[in-house]
Amino acid sequence: MEKLLYTGKAKQMWQTEDPDVLRVVYLDQATMLNGKRKDHFDGKGEAANDISTLVFEYLIDNGIPTHFIKRLSEKEELVKKCHMFPLEFVTRNVCAGHFASRFGLEDGMELAEPVEETFYKSDALDDPFANESDAVAIKACTHEEYQQCWELTRRCNKLLTPLFKKAGMKLVDFKLEFGKLSDGSLVLADEFSPDNCRLWDIKTNAHMDKDVFRKNLADLTTTYDEVYARLQEAVKED
Amino acid sequence: MEKLLYTGKAKQMWQTEDPDVLRVVYLDQATMLNGKRKDHFDGKGEAANDISTLVFEYLIDNGIPTHFIKRLSEKEELVKKCHMFPLEFVTRNVCAGHFASRFGLEDGMELAEPVEETFYKSDALDDPFANESDAVAIKACTHEEYQQCWELTRRCNKLLTPLFKKAGMKLVDFKLEFGKLSDGSLVLADEFSPDNCRLWDIKTNAHMDKDVFRKNLADLTTTYDEVYARLQEAVKED
Ligand SMILES: Nc1ncnc2c1ncn2[C@@H]1O[C@H](COP(=O)(O)OP(=O)(O)O)[C@@H](O)[C@H]1O
Ligand SMILES: Nc1ncnc2c1ncn2[C@@H]1O[C@H](COP(=O)(O)OP(=O)(O)O)[C@@H](O)[C@H]1O
Ligand SMILES: [Mg+2]
Ligand SMILES: [Mg+2]
Repeated sequence: MEKLLYTGKAKQMWQTEDPDVLRVVYLDQATMLNGKRKDHFDGKGEAANDISTLVFEYLIDNGIPTHFIKRLSEKEELVKKCHMFPLEFVTRNVCAGHFASRFGLEDGMELAEPVEETFYKSDALDDPFANESDAVAIKACTHEEYQQCWELTRRCNKLLTPLFKKAGMKLVDFKLEFGKLSDGSLVLADEFSPDNCRLWDIKTNAHMDKDVFRKNLADLTTTYDEVYARLQEAVKED
Repeated sequence: MEKLLYTGKAKQMWQTEDPDVLRVVYLDQATMLNGKRKDHFDGKGEAANDISTLVFEYLIDNGIPTHFIKRLSEKEELVKKCHMFPLEFVTRNVCAGHFASRFGLEDGMELAEPVEETFYKSDALDDPFANESDAVAIKACTHEEYQQCWELTRRCNKLLTPLFKKAGMKLVDFKLEFGKLSDGSLVLADEFSPDNCRLWDIKTNAHMDKDVFRKNLADLTTTYDEVYARLQEAVKED
């Protein structure tokens, strides 16, 4: 019997017959303020699944180890079950969001080199900042694992920034999560969708990500569908 | 003419006839919540100056480059003028304070290795967390300077933890600041006093630092005088 393991803010994680495999169901909802606000959007789960599938397949083709097995249906995919690090690895190519407000800076400033920030995944504690020594002290990971996750994150940034550029979007910032498979190997897990990154249209600077929901700028599903359509074109050219 | 350059939360910095030298005046006050609360304490400036002088002289004797020139009077000292990094380098040997509350941990847990956290010095922004990539992005320092400050901080921890232990106190955590002299060399600056560290009595775990003021536990000046007396004994034995 399939068992629901976890209902998160964007996805459900279901156990399958294979103990090493999970079925992910993308939900038609978006949340903000760590879940304090939650809205329904028809088609959003499908669009997020489409984008994440495309991005994970692109990363796999380029040598990144991931949890991804395959897309199952409009809203579902199969992934390898991980022991997750309770950490968010955030890369910032352009100044925006929390980084801008934390340091009193303007949105939009290009950063000379990527800013790399790690957060401890905890809704109760409001996802506090955690550097390497914090992460190790709270036993979220070892020094080696922390470094490996950041090495992989850097490789992803070097692959995805040009991919999104080809698709006419600036990859402003993004969040990744990592886990370990039952064989102990470290892989990129979770998802890659406009829920977890900032994408700005290269020509107009228009938001093409969850900020559309946070700031009430346009229809979320329409925006995500547009991101997917552009990425499909960009990948074809590749 | 001497000119008051800056009045901070604990000290005044005065220009002297020598453009490379400042006169520091320790104030008889303590603040909390980034200056939102401020109280007067007779003798506190003198006790802080005594302790900081002793600690800086101990560090200098052990090879640490610092801004310290000499104690001038009860509340005054001369220091080399620095171009300060607007950063606080916080080392934690034991879980307490913000670290404990940020991660939902109990005060008092020994840390397997020191936790090292850097903060951007800005009352307006409430001293936000800044890791290496943040500090470089906001131009607070270069990568090399950040690493040099942490190397020096680690050396200070290795010198001061045993010194305080000999004086019957656990050096729970402490904050250092660094700057560059006119010749470009990097030195430990600011002060080292119970305003900027946590000290727990080894036998009773009693607070012997500014937490006495924050939590209204005992007379601040009496506590600081006791810290100084114990350190004098410990240095004599050394
Ligand atoms: N391969 C995997 N194995 C186990 N857990 C995973 C895997 N990929 C992602 N997860 C976890 O499943 C949850 C995904 O659901 P989501 O709605 O994103 O949750 P959250 O609200 O916690 O971010 C997250 O907690 C994520 O860390
Ligand atoms: N050698 C130095 N040269 C220049 N500035 C210094 C030096 N040592 C410390 N400072 C700065 O002088 C101020 C000391 O006053 P303080 O009351 O501690 O201020 P604050 O409230 O900003 O911490 C701090 O801003 C500190 O960075
Ligand atoms: Mg999530
Ligand atoms: Mg100060």
